[in-house]
Amino acid sequence: MGKPLEGVTVLDLGQIYNAPYCTLLLAYLGAEVIKLEPVNGGEHLRKRLGKEGAQFPFLMLNNNKKCITLNLKDEKGKKLFFELVKKVDVVIENFAYGVMDRLGFSYEKLKEANPSIIYASSTGFGGSGPYKDLPAMDLTIQALSGIMSITGFADRPPVKSGPAIADFTGGIHLFGGVMTALYKKAKTGEGDRVEVSMFDAVYPSLASSLGYYFGHKQPPPRTGNRHSGLAEAPYNVYPTIDGHIAIFCVNDKHWANLMNVMNLPEFIDDPRYSTIPERIKNIDEVDELITEWTKGFNKRDLFQLLSRHHVPCAAVQDLEDIHNDEHYRISKMINDIEHPVHGKISVPGNPIRLQSQNDLDIVPAAQLGEHNMEVYHGLLGITMETLEELIEKKVI
Amino acid sequence: MGKPLEGVTVLDLGQIYNAPYCTLLLAYLGAEVIKLEPVNGGEHLRKRLGKEGAQFPFLMLNNNKKCITLNLKDEKGKKLFFELVKKVDVVIENFAYGVMDRLGFSYEKLKEANPSIIYASSTGFGGSGPYKDLPAMDLTIQALSGIMSITGFADRPPVKSGPAIADFTGGIHLFGGVMTALYKKAKTGEGDRVEVSMFDAVYPSLASSLGYYFGHKQPPPRTGNRHSGLAEAPYNVYPTIDGHIAIFCVNDKHWANLMNVMNLPEFIDDPRYSTIPERIKNIDEVDELITEWTKGFNKRDLFQLLSRHHVPCAAVQDLEDIHNDEHYRISKMINDIEHPVHGKISVPGNPIRLQSQNDLDIVPAAQLGEHNMEVYHGLLGITMETLEELIEKKVI
Repeated sequence: MGKPLEGVTVLDLGQIYNAPYCTLLLAYLGAEVIKLEPVNGGEHLRKRLGKEGAQFPFLMLNNNKKCITLNLKDEKGKKLFFELVKKVDVVIENFAYGVMDRLGFSYEKLKEANPSIIYASSTGFGGSGPYKDLPAMDLTIQALSGIMSITGFADRPPVKSGPAIADFTGGIHLFGGVMTALYKKAKTGEGDRVEVSMFDAVYPSLASSLGYYFGHKQPPPRTGNRHSGLAEAPYNVYPTIDGHIAIFCVNDKHWANLMNVMNLPEFIDDPRYSTIPERIKNIDEVDELITEWTKGFNKRDLFQLLSRHHVPCAAVQDLEDIHNDEHYRISKMINDIEHPVHGKISVPGNPIRLQSQNDLDIVPAAQLGEHNMEVYHGLLGITMETLEELIEKKVI
Repeated sequence: MGKPLEGVTVLDLGQIYNAPYCTLLLAYLGAEVIKLEPVNGGEHLRKRLGKEGAQFPFLMLNNNKKCITLNLKDEKGKKLFFELVKKVDVVIENFAYGVMDRLGFSYEKLKEANPSIIYASSTGFGGSGPYKDLPAMDLTIQALSGIMSITGFADRPPVKSGPAIADFTGGIHLFGGVMTALYKKAKTGEGDRVEVSMFDAVYPSLASSLGYYFGHKQPPPRTGNRHSGLAEAPYNVYPTIDGHIAIFCVNDKHWANLMNVMNLPEFIDDPRYSTIPERIKNIDEVDELITEWTKGFNKRDLFQLLSRHHVPCAAVQDLEDIHNDEHYRISKMINDIEHPVHGKISVPGNPIRLQSQNDLDIVPAAQLGEHNMEVYHGLLGITMETLEELIEKKVI
C-alpha cells in the first residue's frame, strides 16, 4: 500500500527548526509539502547555506519538499497565496505571533478561501500572557521554562541544554497537532486552527523536578550527572582516557557486578557500600573509587566490558562518535545521500516508523524556487507568459 | 462539536513518562484511554505514590484515563487482554523490547484478535542494532546520543540535560505516530504497527551541533551558555542578586540599547565593541562588563527593565518561579485541581491547542483499578459473579 499521508497537501511557511521539522515528518510520511520561501535568498536557514557548516541543518530538515518562492508582501503575491491555500489541506507556519495576521492571512481569511483548511502555527509563547512578544529563541525558552535551572552543577551557574530542545519539542508537538486535525477532518470534513507554543511544549518534561518541588516545597538543587533526586549511587559520569562514561547501579546486584569487574569483591558486602542508602551516604567515596578505575580505560572498551557484566552504562559519545555510530547506521536514522549541489551529506531518517511503510525514499533538499514551474503552472494553471512576468517583477 | 478524538478507544500499557505522556494527550483530545496496570500496586510510577514528592509525576500524567488492573501473566488474564484488544482501536506500550512478544502479545497475535488494530510502542533503541538490549534510561540515551557532549562548560565534564528529554521526546513522537496510524485507518480501515525509539527521536534536535561537526570536521566544543557557534556576543547567563538572567544581542541595535540602559553610551561605538566580530574577539571583557552591572539587580526587575528597552533577555526561572508563573497560569498550561485522595495538585494542560476544543476538562488521575467494574462488566459484559472470582484469584 501507499504511504500513510498520500493525498495530503501542505503549504509550509516554516523557518529554521520548529515548523520545518514538523513538515519534514509530514513529507517523509507521504504528504506533498510545498515549502514557500521569500524571493530574496529563501528562508533564514537557507540563507546560511554559504557559511561554513551552516548549510547542513537546512539540508537535514528540508528533504522531500517542493520549494517555491513567493513575495507575500506584494499584492499579486498575496493573491497567489490565496490560490495556493485553495489547493491544499494544511497551512503551517512558525512566524512570530501576529505576523500572519498583519500579512492579511488570519485563520478567518484563509477559511474564507478554503472552508476546510487546517491552519497550524507554532510560536514561542502563544497569543496571550506577559511573554507573548518575547523573541521565541531557544535560549529564552530554556531560561524561562526552568530547563536551565535544573541543568548543570550546583557550584556553577545554571546552563542551557545543548540541543535546540525548545524548537524541536515545539515542532514535534506541532506535527501531533496537525495529525490530530487531519484525523478530525477525515472523520468530519471540517478544518481547524492548531496552535503550539514552545513554552507550553517543554513544561511536561520537567515532571521529575516539579515532583521534587511539590514534595519538598523548594526547587531541586542542580546535581550535575548525579541522580536528580540523589536516590541512586553510583549514578554519574566518569572520566576515561578518551572521554567519559556514564555508569549507574539501580540495585545491589548491579553494584556487586561492578565490584566484581573492578576486582574489588570485598566491597560488595562492605557496610559502607552494601546498600543504596549507604552508598548515597558515602557518594563521594563511591565516585572516587570508580573514577580511579575508569580513567585507565578507553570509553568504548569499558562500555563493552561493563555491559558484558550487566552493569548499566553508556559511553558519552561526541558528535564524531554519533556520526559513525553503528546503531544509527543499522537503524537508518542517519542516511548518507548525494545532494546534486552540495555533494555527499548525512540526513536524518524518520523516528516514526510504520510497518506499512518499509522504506523511506529520501529526496535531497531542493534549490530555492526549484518547483516554481511545477506548482504555479502545473497546480495553479498559470500560463508561462504570466509566470515570466511574475519572475521579472520579483513576485516569485 | 465534540472533541477531535471522540470515539477512539485506546488500551494503554504505558509506564513512567514515555507512553503515559502520549496517552495523556490522546485522553485530553477526547480518546477513551483505558490504562491497564499490574494487580500489585500498579505501574512503576504509581508505586512511588507513597514517597515524598514522587506521587506528583504520576498525578501529572494520568488524568482523564480509566484505570483497570490485569495480571498479564495469568492465563485467564491473557484471555481478558485479548477480549479488550477486540474492543479498542489502539494498543500502546513502552515495555523493554521483546516483553510483549514474550507475554504472547506480538503484533501478529493482536491482529488475529482484531484485524484493524493499531499497535504502537516506544523503546529505548528499537528492535535492531547493537544497543537494542541496553536499559532505556534517560541517562543512557543522553550519553550515547551526544546530548551530554554538547551540554555544559568546556572546563567541566559533559553533563546531562535536566529534563527527561529522551522520555518525553519519545512520548510525543509516539503520539504523532499513533495519530498518523489513526488517520490512515480513518482513510483505509487498516491498522498498523507503530514504533518509536527514544534514541532515534532525539537525533534531529542536534542539528546545529551536527552542522558544526560536518563543517569543521571535528566535534563542537561545549560553550556553556554562550552561543553554540560562538557567533553572537553578548550571549550568556549573568548573575543577579537572586539568581541569573540570560541576555543576548543578535545585532548592533540590541548592543546600543543595552549600553544605553547600562548608562555606558560611549561603548556603543567603541571600536572594541561596536560590531559582532569585535565583541566576539573581546567576549570575556564584554561578559565581565555586563556581569558587574547585572549583579546589582533582582532578576525579574532586570528582565522587565531590559525588555522595556528592547534588549533580548529572559530571567532564569527556578521551579518555584515556574509554578507561580503568570504566563503559564494565563495560558492554562498549569492547572490547579482538587484530587479526591491527594488534595490540591497542579497538572499540565495540553500544549496542542485546537480552536474547536475550547476548554480542557481535566479529570484527576484515577485510583488503581477504579474502573475495573465499568470496563470488565460494562465493556466486556463479564458477570458480577465472575468478576468477584477474578478479583479473588488476583487476575484483576
